[in-house]
Amino acid sequence: MEVGIVGLGLMGGSLGLALKEEKLISCVSGCDANFAHEQKALELGLVHEILGLDEMKRKCDIIFLAIPVEAIIKITQDLEDVGENTTIIDLGSTKQKIIEAVPAKIRANFIPAHPMAGTEYSGPEAAFKSLYNGAVVVVCDFEESHEMHVKRAVELFSHLGMKIVFMSASEHDHHVGLISHLPHAIAFSLASGVLKEEDRRHIMALGGPTFRGMIRVAKSSPVMWSDIFKQNKQNLIGAINMFKNELSECEKLVRDERWDELYSWMNDARKIREIL
Amino acid sequence: MEVGIVGLGLMGGSLGLALKEEKLISCVSGCDANFAHEQKALELGLVHEILGLDEMKRKCDIIFLAIPVEAIIKITQDLEDVGENTTIIDLGSTKQKIIEAVPAKIRANFIPAHPMAGTEYSGPEAAFKSLYNGAVVVVCDFEESHEMHVKRAVELFSHLGMKIVFMSASEHDHHVGLISHLPHAIAFSLASGVLKEEDRRHIMALGGPTFRGMIRVAKSSPVMWSDIFKQNKQNLIGAINMFKNELSECEKLVRDERWDELYSWMNDARKIREIL
Repeated sequence: MEVGIVGLGLMGGSLGLALKEEKLISCVSGCDANFAHEQKALELGLVHEILGLDEMKRKCDIIFLAIPVEAIIKITQDLEDVGENTTIIDLGSTKQKIIEAVPAKIRANFIPAHPMAGTEYSGPEAAFKSLYNGAVVVVCDFEESHEMHVKRAVELFSHLGMKIVFMSASEHDHHVGLISHLPHAIAFSLASGVLKEEDRRHIMALGGPTFRGMIRVAKSSPVMWSDIFKQNKQNLIGAINMFKNELSECEKLVRDERWDELYSWMNDARKIREIL
Repeated sequence: MEVGIVGLGLMGGSLGLALKEEKLISCVSGCDANFAHEQKALELGLVHEILGLDEMKRKCDIIFLAIPVEAIIKITQDLEDVGENTTIIDLGSTKQKIIEAVPAKIRANFIPAHPMAGTEYSGPEAAFKSLYNGAVVVVCDFEESHEMHVKRAVELFSHLGMKIVFMSASEHDHHVGLISHLPHAIAFSLASGVLKEEDRRHIMALGGPTFRGMIRVAKSSPVMWSDIFKQNKQNLIGAINMFKNELSECEKLVRDERWDELYSWMNDARKIREIL
């Protein structure tokens, strides 16, 4: 089986490294809009070869789209002429807008997937083989994909050590709005606010593990994240408002000196320990 | 030199483990309001012996206070009769209210310190030897402490591998309000909100490294943290409001679809990379 990867950054590059280990895959080809990334990916051995999209469409059984979500929407138009046996798997963090943009002709080829994996780093140098191992991958609206392509995707994900969860795209976008996109909005806001309020000396002195852990993802690619906020606008706004209400509740308990209620509120929040 | 530690949880227990390795310290004694914690601390070898506060006052050259900040305020009243050669070091996360509560008679003995170290776990079992190694410790208002006690504290902290930063208590409380206490309020609010909105299945499926990293400190002790919020009320409320404004700015950019400005805002926030 031959695999192509469009986008050779953290997500695509890590996928290349992991797929190269798979016995059933004879060749991993890659391409990237950035020529320097293609060269770096070859140098780091993330893929076997660099191949243009047109050749990839002819050669590969599976094409992964590991690029920012707005770029995924654009590239689906160039994939309309793939053969019916070519599986296309997108790895974007939003799903509804992408599915809406997929040409009807290749909707059966298309597997909308979202691996819950990543770091704050980007580019080919950020890639590492174990990124996907043990991570959840959400597969959306698979009923509209051809069975053959669903099977292929599920087999491949499971061989990479991933835990598959099926969900509708609208459910997915709602839930990741809360559980993934909101935390990114929080991290960017915290980093932004603290940079305005504090000088470098105090941030370095007092930025312990809590602060570092919390602003970690504010180091993520702004291209990738402004695209995601754009595509999941409504869910994100809903999530931000839910969160602001909760934070205001905390503030109110402090302002009104309701210490016993503050304790109970913290103790309830702490129940997250039972889940994660 | 003989050292006493009041409070044998994560902070006190880790300190005991580290001090037992120091050649100049002949004995590390400990006590805890919780009898089971004292037994566990002995069993885990966090301290050499368990000793009541009265005996500790007679025997020890240095007494560390590693208990919640409201309990520190209470216990300072019981320490009023220590000899002038006894150094008292408090490790609380707030400084002004504690300093105000220290009896004038022992203010010279007292070193108000805040090690920027910790994890979300608590109790003696959470203790580990390297907790303080490489961490910043803020020492406040040392001009009011006797030189001999300042020297002792500085030597000890530096021997534990800590990086010492001097700051006034009011500066400290203002800056940690933003850089440490606010992130805790955010973590508790995010955990609380998501627990209300989402079922266990979705949190488990979609709670990737970002979410886990962000709610990590919501697992912290609510006794410890409701006390801290109480003592740093005004600074915390100011920090929450600063943060809510910043998050509202993010929300506004998304709502108004000002994608280029959203990108710039994220790109500015990302400059935190240059510091941490």
